Amino acid sequence: MACDLCNLLAAPGAALIWGDDRLSVVAVDEAEYPGFTRVVWNAHVKEMTDLPAEDRVRIMDVVWAVESAQREVMAPEKVNLASFGNMTPHVHWHVIPRYRDDAHFPNPTWAVAQRASSAEVLAARRALLPALHAAIVEKVKAL
Amino acid sequence: MACDLCNLLAAPGAALIWGDDRLSVVAVDEAEYPGFTRVVWNAHVKEMTDLPAEDRVRIMDVVWAVESAQREVMAPEKVNLASFGNMTPHVHWHVIPRYRDDAHFPNPTWAVAQRASSAEVLAARRALLPALHAAIVEKVKAL
Repeated sequence: MACDLCNLLAAPGAALIWGDDRLSVVAVDEAEYPGFTRVVWNAHVKEMTDLPAEDRVRIMDVVWAVESAQREVMAPEKVNLASFGNMTPHVHWHVIPRYRDDAHFPNPTWAVAQRASSAEVLAARRALLPALHAAIVEKVKAL
Repeated sequence: MACDLCNLLAAPGAALIWGDDRLSVVAVDEAEYPGFTRVVWNAHVKEMTDLPAEDRVRIMDVVWAVESAQREVMAPEKVNLASFGNMTPHVHWHVIPRYRDDAHFPNPTWAVAQRASSAEVLAARRALLPALHAAIVEKVKAL
């Protein structure tokens, strides 16, 4: 069975922000959501409660590091966190900086879009990505 | 400013499955999603990273207890976890048992519905709620 996340982790290329033997932090290429980041457990495990407690603490500590970096660098209105895995049952967390003028606010990004974001606003957020990725690496290394 | 979750916690009534001075576990009344449960931090705090590390561990331990109870009692295809707070910026986690025949599968429940669930299937899932709530209380007390 092919798993999209197993395939991605086999050759993450420039999408990989940080990784070790257990976890990978990956930049998500979604035009409307600069800064959208995924925290992926490297092994193909389906549910959080399939992981031992110490591994659950570890992955969530990395999620909090990403949230913290997004808040510091991108100053979003809110950070959204989600772990679904209905299509790709391989533990991963979506960490999404949200803004009042983004495409779906105040709804989740999986809902129907409310508006289009302006190209200028998106470009300004994209310009923060090098600083965001540096902050993520710094915060994860400090864990 | 009125907060829907502060209002709910002031008088949760029968929706309250378990609670202590820090956290409340609340049954969500969504017809298509029997077993949908929220884990709510009692204090009005906006982001997970506004909480001290020990409180983050505590709320996630309760989320894992709910996920574990849903898996044991309801045998879902997948458990979905999400913390958005765009409309209600008060830390809370959605814990949702998902099934291949549910209204939105494999999409998140906030996406456009794919189908209607049968009344018989929903009734069978609703019949599991007393056992689910007992299992949640047992698992949270064992933490």
